[in-house]
This record gives sequence, C-alpha cells and structure tokens, in this order.
Amino acid sequence: MPVIKIYDTTLRDGSQAEDITFTVEDKIRIAHKLDENGFNYIEGGWPGSNPKDVDFFEKVKHLKFEQAQIVAFGSTRSPRKRADQDPNLNQLLKAGTEVITIFGKSWDMHVQQALETDLDENLRMVAESIQYLKKNTEEVMFDAEHFFDGYKHNPEYALKVLKAAENAGADWIVLCDTNGGSMPWEVHSIFETVAGELKVKLGIHTHNDSELGVANALAAVKAGARQVQGTVNGIGERCGNCNLISVVPNLKLKMGMDCLDAKQMKKLKELSAFVDELANRSHWNHQPYVGKSAFAHKGGVHVSAIRKNRETYEHIEPELVGNQTRILVSDLSGKSNIVYKAQEFGLDIDSADPKVQELLEELKRAERLGFQYEGAEGSFELIMREALGQREEHFEFVGFRVIVEKRKEDEAPIAEATVKVMVNGVQEVTAAEGDGPVNALDKALRKALTRFYPELEEMSLYDYKVRILDESKGTSAKIRVLLESGDQNAKWGTVGVSEDIIEASWQALIDAIIYKLGVAPRHAKEKAESKPQPKLERRGSRFHLKI
Amino acid sequence: MPVIKIYDTTLRDGSQAEDITFTVEDKIRIAHKLDENGFNYIEGGWPGSNPKDVDFFEKVKHLKFEQAQIVAFGSTRSPRKRADQDPNLNQLLKAGTEVITIFGKSWDMHVQQALETDLDENLRMVAESIQYLKKNTEEVMFDAEHFFDGYKHNPEYALKVLKAAENAGADWIVLCDTNGGSMPWEVHSIFETVAGELKVKLGIHTHNDSELGVANALAAVKAGARQVQGTVNGIGERCGNCNLISVVPNLKLKMGMDCLDAKQMKKLKELSAFVDELANRSHWNHQPYVGKSAFAHKGGVHVSAIRKNRETYEHIEPELVGNQTRILVSDLSGKSNIVYKAQEFGLDIDSADPKVQELLEELKRAERLGFQYEGAEGSFELIMREALGQREEHFEFVGFRVIVEKRKEDEAPIAEATVKVMVNGVQEVTAAEGDGPVNALDKALRKALTRFYPELEEMSLYDYKVRILDESKGTSAKIRVLLESGDQNAKWGTVGVSEDIIEASWQALIDAIIYKLGVAPRHAKEKAESKPQPKLERRGSRFHLKI
Repeated sequence: MPVIKIYDTTLRDGSQAEDITFTVEDKIRIAHKLDENGFNYIEGGWPGSNPKDVDFFEKVKHLKFEQAQIVAFGSTRSPRKRADQDPNLNQLLKAGTEVITIFGKSWDMHVQQALETDLDENLRMVAESIQYLKKNTEEVMFDAEHFFDGYKHNPEYALKVLKAAENAGADWIVLCDTNGGSMPWEVHSIFETVAGELKVKLGIHTHNDSELGVANALAAVKAGARQVQGTVNGIGERCGNCNLISVVPNLKLKMGMDCLDAKQMKKLKELSAFVDELANRSHWNHQPYVGKSAFAHKGGVHVSAIRKNRETYEHIEPELVGNQTRILVSDLSGKSNIVYKAQEFGLDIDSADPKVQELLEELKRAERLGFQYEGAEGSFELIMREALGQREEHFEFVGFRVIVEKRKEDEAPIAEATVKVMVNGVQEVTAAEGDGPVNALDKALRKALTRFYPELEEMSLYDYKVRILDESKGTSAKIRVLLESGDQNAKWGTVGVSEDIIEASWQALIDAIIYKLGVAPRHAKEKAESKPQPKLERRGSRFHLKI
Repeated sequence: MPVIKIYDTTLRDGSQAEDITFTVEDKIRIAHKLDENGFNYIEGGWPGSNPKDVDFFEKVKHLKFEQAQIVAFGSTRSPRKRADQDPNLNQLLKAGTEVITIFGKSWDMHVQQALETDLDENLRMVAESIQYLKKNTEEVMFDAEHFFDGYKHNPEYALKVLKAAENAGADWIVLCDTNGGSMPWEVHSIFETVAGELKVKLGIHTHNDSELGVANALAAVKAGARQVQGTVNGIGERCGNCNLISVVPNLKLKMGMDCLDAKQMKKLKELSAFVDELANRSHWNHQPYVGKSAFAHKGGVHVSAIRKNRETYEHIEPELVGNQTRILVSDLSGKSNIVYKAQEFGLDIDSADPKVQELLEELKRAERLGFQYEGAEGSFELIMREALGQREEHFEFVGFRVIVEKRKEDEAPIAEATVKVMVNGVQEVTAAEGDGPVNALDKALRKALTRFYPELEEMSLYDYKVRILDESKGTSAKIRVLLESGDQNAKWGTVGVSEDIIEASWQALIDAIIYKLGVAPRHAKEKAESKPQPKLERRGSRFHLKI
C-alpha cells in the first residue's frame, strides 16, 4: 500500500477564489482542523505577497500541530538577482516553517513572454533558489508551474527544469496543471515519462477547468505521484483546484492507497462543512461523498433495494466518510419508512403503534396539500412529535396583518406587520416595520416572544426559498416556502404551503420558532451527552431575513 | 473525426434530483433549447412512472424540433409477463416517439436481490422487451444498468445480457455506471473489452458520485463509445449525472471529436444558465467552461501575462463556449455583446452609437443591483428599447398598497390590493381581492388598465419564481422575481429585484404588461410578415397567478 501525502492549499490557492476571503483567525482554525483530519502539509500562504499572510505565519509559529507541517509558499528568485539577496526568498525563510514550496516556470513560452528572460537564466533561477532555501530549511518543494502545457510544447526544456530542481536538492517536485486544461491520459503518460527520468519524489497539483481536477490527480497517482495537492471542496481561482474531499476517499477506498486513517476519514464531511462555513458559502448538497444528497434515495424501487442490500445503490458505505443514507421523506410509502425516520430523530416508536397509522394519514393529507418535507426535516419532526403527543405549545396564534405600501415610483415601499399571540394566557400585540413583509412579520413575532423566550435571540434565518407548485388542472396555484434556520448547535428546515405567500412564509416561520423552542434543546442535549462538539461560531446580522 | 452523439437526460434523470422539479411547460422550453443547441437525443421522461410525463409526451407530439429526437424512457417488461401485455412497454409505445430507451439489469446480484428473479428470465426480459419495441419503433436503445459493477462481479453474465440485447436488435447499447463508483481506468478497460465483443453501437452513462462523471464518460469515448448520456450542469439524483456542459467542450475542443458545431458551442453558457434558471438554482460561478469565474483573473502577474498572450493562463478561448475573459480589476466588456443581442430582437444598432455605451452603463448598474436577464429577456428588451428611445409609456405609476390579514389560525388570510395609475391623464384608483398579495395586485392593475387596453385580456401569467440573492457580507439580502407571461403568439420573461418581495413582483408584473402592450405586437407583426407560425394554445385560467 503506497503512502500518499496530502498537501492542502486551501489557505493559499483556495483563497484566491474571487468570492472567498479568510481572516487570519479563520486560517488558523482551518489549519487546526486539517491537522486533526490527518492532512500532511498545510500551505498557509505566500508571505511575500501580502501582510495578512506574514501575520498568519507569525501567529502560527507559536501553535502546536499534531502531525501536519505548515508550509510557506513563494516563487523562485527574480531574474538576474542573487538568491541570498532576493527579498521574496528571504521573506520565505523569515516565515520560519520547516517546509517551503517555491514555484518556477517550466514552459518555455512563459519564461520568454511572462517572465521576459531567457531559458538558461530560468534554469539558474530554479537551481539557485532551491540551493539557497535548502541550506536554511528542512524540506524544500518545487512546484513546476504549467508543467504539462510546457511539456507538450517543449518536452526537452520542461524536463531540463525538473532536473535542475532535482540536482539542486529539492525534496519533492510537484507537476502542476496550472490552467487545468489537460486530459487524464495526457497527465498519466507525461507523468510516467517524467517518473522514469527522475529519482526525486513526485507530487501532482491540478485544477478543475475541464471538470477533471480529481481525475487528473488520480491519473498522476496511478503513474507514480506520491503527493497530491488540492483544496477542501475544490475551492480556488476560476473553476477551483482539485477537490481533496473527493480525492482522499478515492485514494483510500477505491485505490487502496494509504493516507488518512479510518477515524480521520469519518471526519471528512465535517471538515468539508466547516470550511464552507468559514468561507461563508452554503454547503453543496450534491457534493460527492459528503453532500447532504450524496446518499439520498427516493423512488420505491431504490428504497426497497437499499433495504435488502445497500451495495445495490451505494458505491461506498456513507459512514466511512461521516455521511449517511437518507431515505427521502416525500416518498413515504409505508410504516417502516416512518419508523426508520423516527429513529433518525432519536424517537422511540413501534410500527405496530396505532399512532404510526395516524401519522401516515396526516402526512398523506399534507402532501396532497402540497407540503413536501425534503429540505424541511424540522417541520417533519414537528409533525412526528405532535402525533406522538410530544409537541409543546409555547404560544397561541391569534392573528396577523401585513401592509406593504408604495407611494412613488422611485421610493422604497414600506412594509409593516402587526402580530397577535397569546403567551401564558396573556395576549401580546406587537408591530414592526421591516425590509419586506416577511421580515416585518419575523420582527414583530420575535418582539412578541423574545420577552418570554430569550433563547430566540440565538436563532438566525439562513435561507428562504419559494416555489410555485405545479398545479394540476382546476385547483388554484399554491406556494411552498422553505425556510432554513439555525442556532449555534444545528440547522433545521421548515415548510409552509398556502395560496398566499405571506401565509406560507408565516407557517414556515412559526414551525422554525417552535422547533427552536421545543426540539432544538433536546437534540443539543443528546449531542452533548454523546460527545463534545465544537460550537459553530455565530455570524451576526449576515443571516437576517430581509424580504 | 468520429461523431459522438449527445444524449440529454436532464428532463428524466436530471429531474430526479431531490431539489429540482420541472413543470411540463419548463420541460418543453428546455427541450426546444437543447434542440437549438444541437443535442441529438432528448430523453423526455418515463411515461410509465407518472402522469406528468404522460402529459409531456402528449404535448410534445404536436411540436416541431429542428434535429433532436425525443426519447421515451422505461424499463424492460416485468418478470414472467408477456412483453406485448406489459403495461409499461405499451405506455412507452403510446408516447409515440421515434426513439425508445429501456433499462435492464446486467448485475447478477441486482437480478436476484432487487428484481427477485433468476438470471435466465432476466435475459429473456431484455431480449423480448427489445424485440417487441423494435417491431413498433424506429430506434431502440438499451441502458445496461450497473454495468460496470456487474461486470466486476460477474463479467460472463454481464456480457451475456449485452449480447441478448444486441441479438434482439437494439440499435444502441449504453453502459451505465449507475452508482457512480467506478474509476476512469476501470471504465476504459471494461469498455474496451466489451467493444471487442459486440458489433452494436455503444454509449456511456455515468454519475458523479466519485467526482469522476466527466472523466469516466471521456474514458469510455477513448475506448470506443459513440454516444454520451448526461445532463445539463450535471444535475441529477445524489451527486448528479455526468455534466454535458463540460463533456461537450472536452470532446470537441480537447479530443477533436465531432458533436455540436461551432455556433452551437457558443451557446453552451446560455444553455447552462437557462436550465439553472428554470430549475430555480443559482448558476454555479465556478462551473468549468461556462461559470462567471471560469475565465476570471485577478492578481497582477496573471493579468499582465494574459494581456500579452491569453494562452498563458487560459486553457481555451472562452468565446468558443460563449464565455469571456474577466479581468477582475477593470471589467471592460460588452459592446459587441449588446449589438449581438439587439440583432436577436430585430433592433438595428451600431456599436459606435453612443447609446450603446449608455446601455452598457445601465446594464452594469442593474446587474450590481442584482438584476439578471437570463430567463428575463422581455425585461432586457425593454431596457434596450428604452435606451434607443423606443419604449412607449402606456400608463404612469402612482402607487399601490397591499394588505394581508389573517384573523384565526384555521381561516384563510384575506389579501387586498389598491392600485393608483394615470392613463391618458386620468387617475385610476382600483382595488381587488386576490388569492394572495401578488394576485390581488395583478387583478387590481388589470382592472385599472383593461378598460383602456382590452388586449390585456389575452395575457396570461405562466410562471413565477423567487430567488434570494446570495449577497456578499454586509449588504442586505435582495429578492429576484422572475415572471413568465404570454399571449396567443409568444411568451416573455420579466424580472424584478427588491428587498421587498411585493415590490419585486410588482416590477416584474409592470414589465410584463408594458411588454404586452408595446413589444409583443411588433414581434407578432414581424413574425406574421416572415412566415406563418403555429399558434400557441391559449391557456385559460389555469395560469392565473394566485399568490
């Protein structure tokens, strides 16, 4: 079982993505997480390029990592300069890491057109930079930028660059498909040729511009690569880098390579969600291996086959990467599905219980009305608990009124909501203005309830989706609103359906609040009792619903 | 240059994704778009599985497609039944398409455990189903479900199934990696072996569970596949299908295969955005080839190199797939795009005209606000005509007020709208109740205007979509409403953006009405003058907006 080293560049190449910014704090948290997950190298940044990265390396010096090594990244020395006087190289040494990676040109066109120097000088730049760093650092890696394109245009020169790096003492040479345009068979055959010419350990760095980032990395491993560079969730400039969250399970579970251990593998889903959270992106539901939908099954045929043998429709056991099989609630065909679902929620229920039959009837009725519980498992759990007599009433609805008024074409409309609820036998009437009718409703409702339930302050609204239901002839169009809410421990989806968008939103909002007050504390308790979980950081106003 | 047939299953396998629902109208619009883009086969649905798909095939019978063939999808006959008495097969024939695809089992474990029948009976099911369909249909394809997994477990039996299909007269056999767990080298070697054993044309159908959907399809083409099945943007169950929007440029631009022509290639980005729009998903910025960020460059080094030679950091010319280079600092693009777009609307405009520059500014301003004109070409044309001084004012907006009130938990809310407009110097104030606030607004507005413009009676509202815009930190969430309207001649999409959902709906509604009054008659006239067109069927009250 060959050992493959996992080299993460989420903090450097990943943060080049146009919509991603990490604070230094974010970077440190991610570095720790990567370390816990068993990643070998963590490229922290390019200290020569910006002060934030200098700051990161300064802070990281004082921190302990279990096994990962922090890497500083930079480029070869400038043309016609001495290596020991090159500010970029000295900045790298100042970062004080045990490992340094520098990139250099291996495509002749780039040397002449982008660098505007001659081919021999570039060879000297590579060699002298590595020699200088090697004198002062434990481990030095050389990233051969645009290697595959370079090799296609001028194989002789591209190889010369690698040999210069090898002779200068590089510990690793990493072949980069910088523009992401190579095909897997090209990567495989070029890599194999190179491996035959060199003795140094080789790595691979790919990009996803042809949707082949993962495939190209694997092709290189087949041809002898012993290090894979990439980012968590494939984030990065343009179409992103090779996605390590997919590469790792492919290496480990499909190719039998040695990288993360089984316990670390089980934390891949968590790592993936964590990085998205800090990057302020919603997690990709369909993400291979770790997405919420990756092992979700609907359709009676699939579900009954899955029950007989999970291998029928699952390429791996989802638990190996911390994921799980989901039987989609919309296709509730029978009692056994309900029992299965109830167990997921930690509810003890027997399929012989007459309540299960009642619940089935209730669900069928709701689905006929247009309710759908995919993505609204919070509402589903509320229905289930209600049927089991476990739903607590924290307040009673009396009424609401919403007014939206626009008086001039170039004036923003005014949205105002009045809400009446009964709490502990007392009628509360509150009103609020909002950025839109639903925002106004939300504000008025919180105003009425927070006095009694201060924990509502912890709840944020993350997402709001509206769909017009495909009306069958004759019936009137209905609207389904899906709301995603959460607190510091968890997220939950709720649903509302009505011909009126305001009412549908209202229903979903009420469910979200009831969940927060009645169900969320139970799950938080169960979770805390099973094992300690790191708390999600609360992001302030970002998630406020403004509609 | 081998010809590769592109087989799209967005409307069938794609719509299995848990978060995607297409209406029959959506499906028809997508089918036309795929046809224009040069896709060869369009799998429309599984008529045996649900009434919506039956409806789709009924409607599609009366429509004309330029070159694509519509395909009905289903399964082999049930065990121990006669093929000619199998309701599923007969339902397929009733769909009346020239091409039918059926799937069948090729993995022995599936035959025995999922189908619960014996291996020989499965061979008969495959053979007899194909024979029966072949008697009544032009072209029959056989999808060998789980072929690669089946072959790995029992190669002899898996091949037997394919031979049964070949001998029964299948025109194509398509090898499916149903669970998406295969590696590209496995797909390549198994495909090559199979190709050596059979004479029939072979296709490939892959899934993305290992983030290798595209790579696996290409590996099969390298081994002899002449048809690739997949979906637009890779949408589909679990982690999705093979993404045709990436496969096609890889085939055409990287492998030199013959599929779409150069003009159709240029519409890939538009197609990709269009399908996401109808699926109510935001377009993936980092999507290979067609994403907004796919050719976006930041960082001084990249940008200056790009200016010298685009090949330095771009693996293809983005224009080949309808995309463009974006330099993130100073994003100058566009005049030629606007002229191109104007020509599509039959507008005569010269790129030297200063109005083009004004229009560009206006569009940039609107895009910053969150407007987006993919799927809202009606609004786009209005902006364009306004810039050219061709927008007619039929009425003047004064104000509106909407009230939604709910007084008891089990009582439907009341929605009421008041609208003030000036028509021909006269102020009209009207009020109406509706099924929801937007419906009430729509009714009140029509009440005010129909007296002056009776042709508004011809206009129906077909669809209404709402999206919360993914905003960068600090700014408040905005809502985009997309409305689809139409009359007996055409359909048009309009858009509104606001923090208030009612106002966003109002904007889209106003645009739809202005388009109906000012633009629709022009196009109807042009159309009538060029060639007679079949009239779209008028949809009565079914499409009334009730929200």
